[in-house]
Amino acid sequence: MTPETIRPGGTIGILGGGQLGRMLALAAARLGLKAHIYCPEANSPAFDVAARKTVAAYEDEAALADFADHVDVVTYEFENVPARTAAVLAAHCAVRPGPAALAASQDRLVEKRFMADLGVPTAPFVDVADAGALARAVATIGRPSILKTRRFGYDGKGQAMLREGADLGATFRGLGGAPCILEGVVPFVKEVSVVAARGLDGTFAAYDVCENAHENHILSRTIAPAALAADTAARAVAMARRIADALDYVGVIAVEMFVTREFDAKGREVEALRVNEFAPRVHNSGHWTLDGAVTSQFEQHVRAICGWPLGAPTRHGARVEMRNLIGAEAEDWRDILRAPGASLHLYGKADARPGRKMGHVTRIWTESEG
Amino acid sequence: MTPETIRPGGTIGILGGGQLGRMLALAAARLGLKAHIYCPEANSPAFDVAARKTVAAYEDEAALADFADHVDVVTYEFENVPARTAAVLAAHCAVRPGPAALAASQDRLVEKRFMADLGVPTAPFVDVADAGALARAVATIGRPSILKTRRFGYDGKGQAMLREGADLGATFRGLGGAPCILEGVVPFVKEVSVVAARGLDGTFAAYDVCENAHENHILSRTIAPAALAADTAARAVAMARRIADALDYVGVIAVEMFVTREFDAKGREVEALRVNEFAPRVHNSGHWTLDGAVTSQFEQHVRAICGWPLGAPTRHGARVEMRNLIGAEAEDWRDILRAPGASLHLYGKADARPGRKMGHVTRIWTESEG
Repeated sequence: MTPETIRPGGTIGILGGGQLGRMLALAAARLGLKAHIYCPEANSPAFDVAARKTVAAYEDEAALADFADHVDVVTYEFENVPARTAAVLAAHCAVRPGPAALAASQDRLVEKRFMADLGVPTAPFVDVADAGALARAVATIGRPSILKTRRFGYDGKGQAMLREGADLGATFRGLGGAPCILEGVVPFVKEVSVVAARGLDGTFAAYDVCENAHENHILSRTIAPAALAADTAARAVAMARRIADALDYVGVIAVEMFVTREFDAKGREVEALRVNEFAPRVHNSGHWTLDGAVTSQFEQHVRAICGWPLGAPTRHGARVEMRNLIGAEAEDWRDILRAPGASLHLYGKADARPGRKMGHVTRIWTESEG
Repeated sequence: MTPETIRPGGTIGILGGGQLGRMLALAAARLGLKAHIYCPEANSPAFDVAARKTVAAYEDEAALADFADHVDVVTYEFENVPARTAAVLAAHCAVRPGPAALAASQDRLVEKRFMADLGVPTAPFVDVADAGALARAVATIGRPSILKTRRFGYDGKGQAMLREGADLGATFRGLGGAPCILEGVVPFVKEVSVVAARGLDGTFAAYDVCENAHENHILSRTIAPAALAADTAARAVAMARRIADALDYVGVIAVEMFVTREFDAKGREVEALRVNEFAPRVHNSGHWTLDGAVTSQFEQHVRAICGWPLGAPTRHGARVEMRNLIGAEAEDWRDILRAPGASLHLYGKADARPGRKMGHVTRIWTESEG
């Protein structure tokens, strides 16, 4: 069985070979750890920086068992790890974050109910098990509202906006007839996220709440800290902590939230928060920490899953901006290298397809600058 | 033939698989480049973070040719690359820094004469081709003085102090009877180094001059910036630039210097500099730049050898300290992880032999702290 705490020289197993796995492997290397990447796709970017690799399907139980026998702890770069995969691995070594986090984050209905049970506000939602349930749900939630498949949604995939006059049956079938939830549209002022870590001993460390901008449903830009009232930011961090504690979470967690203007019981307009979703892993909105914080989210995740003390999440500078390089935007690499104060990260992906995250660039502002 | 400029996705070949090769490979990965490590020792730390590896002798010309055919540019983590090795590689692809830098840095006599030709002050020195020449050399330089083999010295190896009464013949034989130089002892106030980079286009960027402390001839601690008069620091950087320009250098160079108190022509005591040696590579005294500068020396070296624009060498904070973890000192990893503001780097070496560099720890001070 896995020891609770991994020593330098140990091996971290990572499911997934994309840029998150790659940056986790780089952080592990810096701390004297080896990375073993497990990924079905040959030529995955993370393989290039890993001590060992396994190219196999996530359903290949023999390969999973062999992988788990050769690593000290398993983590993952994506939340849609099949429950069976996690169970097979867990029979051989520690899987961190654990199964509760995977179960709650893979299914939008389970996730929303989990939040509701914790008293964490979300968008209004209704279960839509089948086409017949959709009309009843629309009657409850109203329009516009958003129909989302319960599972396998990301970057705007698996969802459809329901406006006045939309054909409910066609919309439901358009999402594959899969079980869905209907969510009310939250009229948000801004989107923020809390990237934080919880250690094996229950310690908790949050980065500054950051503000996110999306284009075509893909994160384009993050600014830390978000422009929020101090008590709103504190409430955001407290919600993330409540979620992490409830899951007995180990590792970095990212909680996406909407900031709204709402009226309180006394009719005063207040800055409010509603959680959109959480990801049980390092997150694109935490990439700014690589250059912009004392401990990056990748090192923090490695520390947590190894049972090590968490590092300081302290921000460098007055403000940090992270911009994603999507598709052909990465062709500007030479100009970015020349820009004073810009830090370039490229993920080693050969093919710059539209919408593909190819890299990111970070910039730190000191007090005296814009 | 190699293009002058490498594109992201290209492969950097690195001779040597120690911690410097490892940190170069990590910097290359961050920029979307692949690293191919060539090293005779299996289980070299750099292999764990490299996309490809070759385990072969530096004299294996078939392996060298194959390696060079599969990379876009070759660099190295140590200056004692045999001239023949460099020539075999250069027939297949660019080798950066080039042969002039290797030739000048491998032989203390050639190095000292090169400095003298440039008007760069060093310790007084005399060629000691054989035992007979040593007595004449001692008559010129005086005692105490230091007898050093011309080649293959590092970390105090290949040298002997000649004090009053020392047996000259025995000392010469004690260094293997190899060709030597005799150097006068420089009564230095402190040891500093200039870590700087020169781009393919001749641009030059120096980090802050840093101050180094050694224990048992091994670097133990570096502080940036060194406590020096501004004009002394400027002269140190100018010397490094003169050396790099004379070599038509490409990459990061480290120039070690002694700071002395000397008397100028008018009899005034002044802060003076004498170059000890230079290393045509990233250097232990530049490790502070990994956390303490906008662009690390490793990224800077990669940028230079790829023909890319150099990055800003700007220091973070008011002062940066780097401490080497030698041998068993790395056992303190858990305490270091807990120390506020400390950044831990471990090199993934299995065996913590005495005197072995196992990792380092960096600390950044802001204005308000000590």
